Amino acid sequence: MPGGLLTDLYELNMAASYLRRDMDGSATFSLYVRGLPKSRGFLVAAGLEPCLDLLESFSFTDDDLEALGEMGFDDRALADFSALRFTGDVWAVPEGRVVYSEEPLLEVTAPVAVAQVVETMLLNQITLHTTMASKAARYVLAAEGRQLVDFSFRRTHGVEAAMAVARASALVGFAATSNVEAARRYDLTVAGTMAHSFVEAFPTEGEAFRAFAEDHPQRTTFLVDTYDTLGGVRAAIATVRELGLDGALGVRLDSGDLDALARSARTVLDDAGLREARIFASGGLDELEVHELVSAGAPVDAFGIGTQMGVSADAPYVDSVYKLVEYDDRPVMKLSSAKVSPPGRKQVWRRSGGEHADVLSLRDERGPIGSEALLGQVMLAGRRTTPASSIEECRRRFGVDLAYVPQKARRLSHPEHVVVAHSEALLALTDRTRDEALRRSGAGR
Amino acid sequence: MPGGLLTDLYELNMAASYLRRDMDGSATFSLYVRGLPKSRGFLVAAGLEPCLDLLESFSFTDDDLEALGEMGFDDRALADFSALRFTGDVWAVPEGRVVYSEEPLLEVTAPVAVAQVVETMLLNQITLHTTMASKAARYVLAAEGRQLVDFSFRRTHGVEAAMAVARASALVGFAATSNVEAARRYDLTVAGTMAHSFVEAFPTEGEAFRAFAEDHPQRTTFLVDTYDTLGGVRAAIATVRELGLDGALGVRLDSGDLDALARSARTVLDDAGLREARIFASGGLDELEVHELVSAGAPVDAFGIGTQMGVSADAPYVDSVYKLVEYDDRPVMKLSSAKVSPPGRKQVWRRSGGEHADVLSLRDERGPIGSEALLGQVMLAGRRTTPASSIEECRRRFGVDLAYVPQKARRLSHPEHVVVAHSEALLALTDRTRDEALRRSGAGR
Repeated sequence: MPGGLLTDLYELNMAASYLRRDMDGSATFSLYVRGLPKSRGFLVAAGLEPCLDLLESFSFTDDDLEALGEMGFDDRALADFSALRFTGDVWAVPEGRVVYSEEPLLEVTAPVAVAQVVETMLLNQITLHTTMASKAARYVLAAEGRQLVDFSFRRTHGVEAAMAVARASALVGFAATSNVEAARRYDLTVAGTMAHSFVEAFPTEGEAFRAFAEDHPQRTTFLVDTYDTLGGVRAAIATVRELGLDGALGVRLDSGDLDALARSARTVLDDAGLREARIFASGGLDELEVHELVSAGAPVDAFGIGTQMGVSADAPYVDSVYKLVEYDDRPVMKLSSAKVSPPGRKQVWRRSGGEHADVLSLRDERGPIGSEALLGQVMLAGRRTTPASSIEECRRRFGVDLAYVPQKARRLSHPEHVVVAHSEALLALTDRTRDEALRRSGAGR
Repeated sequence: MPGGLLTDLYELNMAASYLRRDMDGSATFSLYVRGLPKSRGFLVAAGLEPCLDLLESFSFTDDDLEALGEMGFDDRALADFSALRFTGDVWAVPEGRVVYSEEPLLEVTAPVAVAQVVETMLLNQITLHTTMASKAARYVLAAEGRQLVDFSFRRTHGVEAAMAVARASALVGFAATSNVEAARRYDLTVAGTMAHSFVEAFPTEGEAFRAFAEDHPQRTTFLVDTYDTLGGVRAAIATVRELGLDGALGVRLDSGDLDALARSARTVLDDAGLREARIFASGGLDELEVHELVSAGAPVDAFGIGTQMGVSADAPYVDSVYKLVEYDDRPVMKLSSAKVSPPGRKQVWRRSGGEHADVLSLRDERGPIGSEALLGQVMLAGRRTTPASSIEECRRRFGVDLAYVPQKARRLSHPEHVVVAHSEALLALTDRTRDEALRRSGAGR
């Protein structure tokens, strides 16, 4: 996927002008989230890997150039585009780290034309993956250690989104996914049982269970709510008894009052001496419902999580931006709205081993004593400088960071935002740049 | 994309059992939306084309089979999978038609194993496209004839979703998209101007505008709010005057009080004698904000619509289901929850030339006099029976249908749902099948 056309037209308009005018000054764009959704106290950085893949392979094919010619770009523009590659540097926060609003997830420094053209895709991919990882993290908080499985494929915004959700949820600690292609692609544990239609295709529920257990003796979790849930549990018990598979029994509840049904099912299973049998709950659960079941002590061992996570239903996007902060060694900022974007290349400093209280600084500043830098260089002159992180590494990073997210930001309901301090040098540069921008805006007319 | 692994594991578990047991009975699955989101009074059918593409090419590659072997499927299952193709029939509602809850968008009749395996992808694609077309339709209602342009690429859930949004919005009447690849792929009008970063990369706003207009004399819409909006409008006027491009001026407002700024900009433009100059508004607008601007008479000629549409922010999914309604000539239904899915193959009848009052019937029934059938056969024995609809055809269909959506369902705020009547024959079959299912659920233990 060379990707030259995976962009908005205005990016190409601007790039054509820059290239034509030999404006090859180095531009730094900072990609960050401007303010968190109301129901988010923190975000989980994700999506860096697809971005780096895109940047390494960025170019226009002959077909791309032909299409652009038909859209009105002249020969000079097409010639300029055909030579365009991503030759810049990238600094980024590693995937799996907790970030707050205003903290750059990614900073790109490159000749302005190519730095501009990649905006659309960088925003698209970071937004998708970060939105999903941040949503999945809320289920991890809600489940308090109970297992979570991604069931979202059927309702995500396409196949690509389904892959992103499977990966993002694994990254924050989900145990498995139902998504077979994602399991192959990212080497995840795959999980799945049966649907109601399977039970309905057999003359009786008992016959359906028996057939399934005979065919998949390693996957003896039965969906028990097609006709009558507790009747289904009894049919499941009879099936594993008959086939000598008592050791591996699981039952899945997908409808009704999950708390009450889980308790009743637990009693029926325990009374049958099947204390090891697992109870699995699914059915459109959001993280607050998971938390309610867990808090109430419902005997649910694992949750299947679908649509609500797969589209990040309560907050389906984050307010991500890609702002020019420096051009040709000159810090820049936009004036006209209330949303100020501080100028200059940045770094984020995080106190080690304590509750997060981050400082946003200029990149070349030293951080406070006892703090670590969140952004590191990941690409130099268009080439990766570090190998891709494994999902396990990301998950470890997330685990460490999550322990230090302030309690007020971890809350599932009405979390408070963590305010990031600005360093003295950044504040001073912001003031100077604002004055300069005001001067320019006056001088322009 | 043969697509065999683009599914949930449980679909493959069930298929393996069916194939092993020679259960090749014909199954009919009905894909419909169970209840509309609160803010939707109607839906726009979309996503059929990618579904038919998928069904025609459905198979497992050698790599797929190897991966499935590693996931625990035995040689018998792999041999069965390797021979699996979609050989069934499909009936569907054409893209662009208005549909209501309970009305099948798609019905698949095929040997049960393959009909089951394709569930995940059919739901995924129909849900994505229908969600997006239905959201875009609300902007069309809100804009009351003003032009709409899709600007959502940067915030959609991936590239595939961006393409779906561009296509779905074109299908209901958007005039253009900023998405260059979508414009190429679907032959849409592409549109775009410049970003704030372009203005900032030049010493002054005036110089940026001049450069842009010189380089793109056919695209002289200027983003005027980088420093001071009305100052920007004046700079834009000076630029087109200087270059003799007065005829084509446009200004884009992307922040601030759009109503007040549009009026002020209109006055400045009119005072300069530029009554033909167009005003373009963007900036995270939802359909209610568009409607408010239009109702208030703000002089906005066109709207750029981004994130709120691109993720269908107020309703990022619809409650789509894929229910087994018939197996081996036997109507089936699930009992245990309140959500009853009526059995049997269906048809939807719509009164011609009047406000919609649809009837859901069995497929072979005759419809009421003066009504037309919504579902038609689109695939026979695994092959398309009709050519794909063009976007123009879909748009025409939508335009005709929209005129007859009851007013209460068209409302942007608190729309009421249209209740679909069930035919006598369907009601009778539902009763008989419920009794039969009760009998089976008792008999099973």
